[in-house]
Amino acid sequence: MNASGKTIVIVGGVAGGASAAARARRIDERATIILFEKDEDVSFANCGLPYYIGGEIADRAKLLVAPKQLLERRFRLDVRTRQEVVSIDRQAKTVAVRDHGSGADYVQPYDRLILAPGASPLVPPIAGADAPGVFTLRNLEDSDRIKAAVEASGAKTAAVVGAGYIGLEMVEQLVRRGFRVALAELQPRILPLFDPEMVRPIEDDLRSRGVALCLGDGIEAVLTGPDGRARGVRLTSGAELEAEVVILGLGVRPNLGLARDAGLKIGPPPGGGIATNEFMQTSDPDIYAVGDAAEYAYGPTGSPLRIALAGPANRAGRIAGEHAASGKARPMAEVFGTAIVRVFDRVAAMTGLTMALARKLGREARSVVVVSNNHAGYYPGAEPITLKLVYEPGTGKVLGAQALGGAGVDKRIDVIATALHFGGTVADLAGLDLAYAPPFGAAKDPVHLAAFAACNQLDGLADFVEPDADLAGVPQFVDVRSPAEVAEAPFPGVDRVINIPLDDLRDRIGELDPAAETVVSCRTGLRSHVAQRILRQHGFNRVKTVTGGAMIRRRAWRGS
Amino acid sequence: MNASGKTIVIVGGVAGGASAAARARRIDERATIILFEKDEDVSFANCGLPYYIGGEIADRAKLLVAPKQLLERRFRLDVRTRQEVVSIDRQAKTVAVRDHGSGADYVQPYDRLILAPGASPLVPPIAGADAPGVFTLRNLEDSDRIKAAVEASGAKTAAVVGAGYIGLEMVEQLVRRGFRVALAELQPRILPLFDPEMVRPIEDDLRSRGVALCLGDGIEAVLTGPDGRARGVRLTSGAELEAEVVILGLGVRPNLGLARDAGLKIGPPPGGGIATNEFMQTSDPDIYAVGDAAEYAYGPTGSPLRIALAGPANRAGRIAGEHAASGKARPMAEVFGTAIVRVFDRVAAMTGLTMALARKLGREARSVVVVSNNHAGYYPGAEPITLKLVYEPGTGKVLGAQALGGAGVDKRIDVIATALHFGGTVADLAGLDLAYAPPFGAAKDPVHLAAFAACNQLDGLADFVEPDADLAGVPQFVDVRSPAEVAEAPFPGVDRVINIPLDDLRDRIGELDPAAETVVSCRTGLRSHVAQRILRQHGFNRVKTVTGGAMIRRRAWRGS
Repeated sequence: MNASGKTIVIVGGVAGGASAAARARRIDERATIILFEKDEDVSFANCGLPYYIGGEIADRAKLLVAPKQLLERRFRLDVRTRQEVVSIDRQAKTVAVRDHGSGADYVQPYDRLILAPGASPLVPPIAGADAPGVFTLRNLEDSDRIKAAVEASGAKTAAVVGAGYIGLEMVEQLVRRGFRVALAELQPRILPLFDPEMVRPIEDDLRSRGVALCLGDGIEAVLTGPDGRARGVRLTSGAELEAEVVILGLGVRPNLGLARDAGLKIGPPPGGGIATNEFMQTSDPDIYAVGDAAEYAYGPTGSPLRIALAGPANRAGRIAGEHAASGKARPMAEVFGTAIVRVFDRVAAMTGLTMALARKLGREARSVVVVSNNHAGYYPGAEPITLKLVYEPGTGKVLGAQALGGAGVDKRIDVIATALHFGGTVADLAGLDLAYAPPFGAAKDPVHLAAFAACNQLDGLADFVEPDADLAGVPQFVDVRSPAEVAEAPFPGVDRVINIPLDDLRDRIGELDPAAETVVSCRTGLRSHVAQRILRQHGFNRVKTVTGGAMIRRRAWRGS
Repeated sequence: MNASGKTIVIVGGVAGGASAAARARRIDERATIILFEKDEDVSFANCGLPYYIGGEIADRAKLLVAPKQLLERRFRLDVRTRQEVVSIDRQAKTVAVRDHGSGADYVQPYDRLILAPGASPLVPPIAGADAPGVFTLRNLEDSDRIKAAVEASGAKTAAVVGAGYIGLEMVEQLVRRGFRVALAELQPRILPLFDPEMVRPIEDDLRSRGVALCLGDGIEAVLTGPDGRARGVRLTSGAELEAEVVILGLGVRPNLGLARDAGLKIGPPPGGGIATNEFMQTSDPDIYAVGDAAEYAYGPTGSPLRIALAGPANRAGRIAGEHAASGKARPMAEVFGTAIVRVFDRVAAMTGLTMALARKLGREARSVVVVSNNHAGYYPGAEPITLKLVYEPGTGKVLGAQALGGAGVDKRIDVIATALHFGGTVADLAGLDLAYAPPFGAAKDPVHLAAFAACNQLDGLADFVEPDADLAGVPQFVDVRSPAEVAEAPFPGVDRVINIPLDDLRDRIGELDPAAETVVSCRTGLRSHVAQRILRQHGFNRVKTVTGGAMIRRRAWRGS
């Protein structure tokens, strides 16, 4: 310890806390930097835990991103594991610490305090929630316990409750392990943060792999056997699922106690976290907050939002560490809730607002959905990507995007997340100079195609309805696919379909009423756009297409 | 034909021309749209030709993106193949056409003319250049000829001359076909548009696959056998390479004759193309130009530049088609020369300025090189990406980037290309909210790491030298790797190396002279950054690191 340096105390040693500590040391060689972690491990790979349980990551040591010894030796951090900060005295500038190892309590002074207390898994107040065989997943010790249960001889059935990111990753890993898995989710769909039609193919895929999906159904009780161990779950619907292993993936509650007790400003319920400024300072400028318990400036609304994701935690930790050490740093950028999940061969990703969230926020928004290959269709292995772009009418400002597919989903979402950072418009997206060679993309990328469609709408060249629009009363609905396509995958939710294949439209245009309100559809929206352009120039002034065509309509329709 | 509509004549039926035609039709149902193509095929997948020759794309029909029949039926285009526009009469608003089918000449009036004449492969004026067995690759007929030669019984040796994108793609496909391949390139490296250190691993890989690399060596003659057929090439060095198949991949010359003869403005030599405005109009507002022969606004310089890539051609064609049809369109965005190539398992991509080009343009620039995994290192299958970020000192404005690796190279370049579109800075890149899950990235993405390093330099927290810097006279060179690492891969081009492993640096700091000019290195630049921060805070005021560390230095050194 160097008496001339300041003391920086950090509460929580995982993503945000560990980043803050390492950056603080690089900025200030003389500071005393103390990293408190109430659990066993610091700087472990939180996001890797499901893959360790499933065996995709074989070596547990790989999950320790920066082992304690390295933090101590390279960064001269004073790492205190199994020591819990239980209260803050802001006047005295001290924290009270409970050492779970020795059992002793003591007081630690600080000059700057960085709170990275994280969040705790939600456990519902139901019978059996604490039975052996019921697990939440938050740290390495949790994953050790789950792994042991999964590898226990005989165990072959599992129930996962909650179909968010961690829930789905656990379903995947349990299926890989040969388990018969049931997945229950209170919402009528998996991945409730997405718009419904964006996740249907993952649901179908899960079912095809034998996963029992119980959607729109909550957990009512954990059923236990005579030995007291979990043997299943009972859902609100009354359904009972056999499960020797029960994983609760119901989300997290931020650990706000320390901050609240210290009188730091907390955002309004229900979603509020520790309020921060652009340097991650709380309402007490000597105290910082980062990670799952902190609020960030959320780009799409400009308002504070708690976001429990590793990316912002790591970046914010670095900023807090620098600012705590030197009093200056570049400000934290806005976040957009950019996230991605792989479920077997399928990938879903999002950034910014969904249509559902835009509607909930009362935000005026339009959306366009395109289905296009991840790379040139003529090059082997092309896979379709469904890309939904949400934008502001009038300005064309991009509000958000969602993508579903396989390879290349991450790229499209990261490109649009980058455009969101700059406040870009759909016209900006249409003009992006992206890298193209047949194995990687197309001369017109899915991002371009979605942007072209949105620009057409903004420029008055085209108009479209949302995939879940009520089309029952539309007087003239024209499907421009071939009759065989229509027979194979009918367009749902319309009273009467006039089927004129696109290439016959000019010849058969007399069969249609130019004065009638007209909606056109095809398989994905490409052909119906051409049809719309033809009809409009033949005096049809009230024509729209269905964005995403019958393919997306069929997904949205099931969801409504 | 509708007498009331305008006549839009398009010269060239591939990427730019076909895009223009389809868009023009969607905008104007009544126009007469005539698409002239002097060769056999329209709207074929130019970029797919090497993969068809190599057999990766098995079905030739897949290369016909929009067959003539579809263009005629769906878009009511008047497609005239094997008809060549040989001159333009701007006063009369007509073009003179030679019909290579009938042999007849005729005059075709136009209201708007879109030139998409493309470019022709360069053929050097050397002996044997026209011998059977010598090929250039530009269209489907070329690839049919090459494919026939490659599949001819007995042929087993090939020489590719020119190590640009097409040359390398052909090398890959010929090796896949079992050919013994030699690759000759006048520049001392492959992919001459890249900075040298970014392409060395591809050279090593090609050699390991048995490709004979003849770098810094030009072609002097094609050697022919008694039957007049190619049997090899002789290089400037005197080396003779056996080759039954010779592919000339020496770049292209834009087809400017039509435009030049018509008095349209052409950019200054040597690189000039047909000058255009933001709607792709030439100096004659009724005539547009797109594709390989046209100039675009090049973002990094703001000046016009001819860019022979499919992406800009397709986007520009769409804009020209709309503007020709309606007199309005959204403007063409700036281009950045974003490009990507796969060579076996390796991928190289770039956008914007390289350091070499920045230096050539006299543009003040800094660069930083990071080596980081494409996704979380603890998740199986992680592959390193080398990412070089070029930026403007002072402002931190991003000027360009290059990446080398496998999976995920395309994503990083597209993210940075998006930032370039918005005129973003390295601080913007540091704050991007990118999608993270272990199979796709890291909480701190390679883009973040490169941006962090650049920000550290801008903020005075760190400084570094380029990988190719002259370090012979540096008084104090410190390598902070382990002695074993140093022995395995010594740092080249320094007189004397002081080896102090990073974790011993604080203890052994007394061995170093704080007043001396000091350069620190490690394997990739991560550890040396920590060392630099330690040294600076211990009174070393003249310390820098080597960006990219010994790994990149060793690549750059070989190239210098």
